[in-house]
Amino acid sequence: MSVLIAADFEDADWDAWWPALTAALPHERLVRSIAEAAGDAIDIALVANPPAGALQGLNSLRLIQSLWAGVDKLLADPTVPPGVPLARMVDPAMNAAMAETALWAVLGLQRDFFDYAASQRAAQWKPMPQRRASDLTVAVLGQGQMGRAVARRLVQHGCRVIGWSTRPCEVDGVQTHAGDAAWPAVLAMAQIVVNLLPLTPATRGVLNAAAFAQMPRGASLVNLARGAHVVEADLRAALDAGHLHRAVLDVFAAEPLPAAHPYWSHPRVTVLPHIAAQTDPRSAAAVVAANVEACRSGLPLAHLVDRVRGY
Amino acid sequence: MSVLIAADFEDADWDAWWPALTAALPHERLVRSIAEAAGDAIDIALVANPPAGALQGLNSLRLIQSLWAGVDKLLADPTVPPGVPLARMVDPAMNAAMAETALWAVLGLQRDFFDYAASQRAAQWKPMPQRRASDLTVAVLGQGQMGRAVARRLVQHGCRVIGWSTRPCEVDGVQTHAGDAAWPAVLAMAQIVVNLLPLTPATRGVLNAAAFAQMPRGASLVNLARGAHVVEADLRAALDAGHLHRAVLDVFAAEPLPAAHPYWSHPRVTVLPHIAAQTDPRSAAAVVAANVEACRSGLPLAHLVDRVRGY
Repeated sequence: MSVLIAADFEDADWDAWWPALTAALPHERLVRSIAEAAGDAIDIALVANPPAGALQGLNSLRLIQSLWAGVDKLLADPTVPPGVPLARMVDPAMNAAMAETALWAVLGLQRDFFDYAASQRAAQWKPMPQRRASDLTVAVLGQGQMGRAVARRLVQHGCRVIGWSTRPCEVDGVQTHAGDAAWPAVLAMAQIVVNLLPLTPATRGVLNAAAFAQMPRGASLVNLARGAHVVEADLRAALDAGHLHRAVLDVFAAEPLPAAHPYWSHPRVTVLPHIAAQTDPRSAAAVVAANVEACRSGLPLAHLVDRVRGY
Repeated sequence: MSVLIAADFEDADWDAWWPALTAALPHERLVRSIAEAAGDAIDIALVANPPAGALQGLNSLRLIQSLWAGVDKLLADPTVPPGVPLARMVDPAMNAAMAETALWAVLGLQRDFFDYAASQRAAQWKPMPQRRASDLTVAVLGQGQMGRAVARRLVQHGCRVIGWSTRPCEVDGVQTHAGDAAWPAVLAMAQIVVNLLPLTPATRGVLNAAAFAQMPRGASLVNLARGAHVVEADLRAALDAGHLHRAVLDVFAAEPLPAAHPYWSHPRVTVLPHIAAQTDPRSAAAVVAANVEACRSGLPLAHLVDRVRGY
């Protein structure tokens, strides 16, 4: 039995993942293509943005383990075998990276560091009044592994943090709200909205003109989840009308963001190249190994995706 | 007896300070100029960047309380009465603001957010490998109130933190070093150097070509203390030679930084307009009131400056 790594890795990615995975799975036969398996059956696939159809025809599959946290692309690929257990990557190091990115964005907004960067480009010395973390209410949309990690880090920073999720949940120090009825009020309370929702049919386009209109004037959006959560034209309109102050965006409808996209040069949009939380092979390989071993031993698999719910 | 506020405040500063100070000192007669005292003796001066000579001739002074943390300008003014106790501003809210700025700069360097901003200006989608906080050694120069607050916050963030100060001190989780003999080794260990030294004759120009040469190739400097700690020509040479990666500078030899200064447009210099830790009147007024009351009651004064040591 072989384990297929189906990934769109660059050489640098392979250089990090290959030694980590071979060290974590010393008794497995790892292959990088179906051809490399040379007829040996493939029963486990480790996937990272695999090209559509990459898993087609693998009739012995017993586990599809994503190396990334988001699985929306896999779920949208009709050639991914529907009956095979699909596991997401859940890695504390990745949660920590996401919390760092959210904290950096919140600090930049709280303390006007993004605006000071704009002042620097204009060679303008322009001190602004200093806000305290406790002056800010931050809404964290999505209370999954990453949303909770972000919420906890922002509580530790001293912000007032409110959390929103589809289903009720509790996080220490966070005022949590659930369901559609609470959505407008959560947005209305937030000077900063940090999006960490899973992308599902229900959350696609949920950050739209109606949502931005709920947010108070001068509020900012930090999108660390998926580009398709945001209706781009609505966001640009809200920014250009001066209703929203700034957007910090790590994810986009099309990635890489096309060179001609107006976000690149928008004075109040910060573009990050989908790096808010990269999987770190040093810790993620152990997470993969645990699930591969569980699969081989017939033990329960961790972090399985509910394909109907979509995450 | 009157209390003189001798400050170069803008209107917005007065709007914040005046209500905070009058509320904190309800039994004091506060005046904004010697003329306003109308002959009443002034025995306490609250100072914030006062023009040179502002305290000249005040023969009844018993306390000079700075509203800022740094007192180097006051000590350089020969008209400030030398025998009068001089107190610095020490305010936990100000320490917290400084720690936030240092954390933001360290996060920006650790996670390449400054470089992503440069990529955005070039409309380039260019993800880079992600570093963990624990991959970084940060040296915090100066272990006073602010240096210790910064060191503690960076330890909490997960960095390896080493501290340097003139005299030995201990901070939980920080590997501290003291004195000239330790200086080169501390610099040599640091991927990031955060300067929070007091400005004294001994520390003026201490961040010079020799210091930069000790720092490892690719290291970065964060200067949150005083511009005069840095030899600007040496810093620019170290950046332009590619030895130092980046400088995040909040303070400069001349402030405001002149419009023609090369820092403004340097691709690897971040310019902040001396806002790393602004005094927050909401908390600082209480610190002032405590010292004013101590002075009136003949009790020991807090946060007195040693004029020989210079801080």
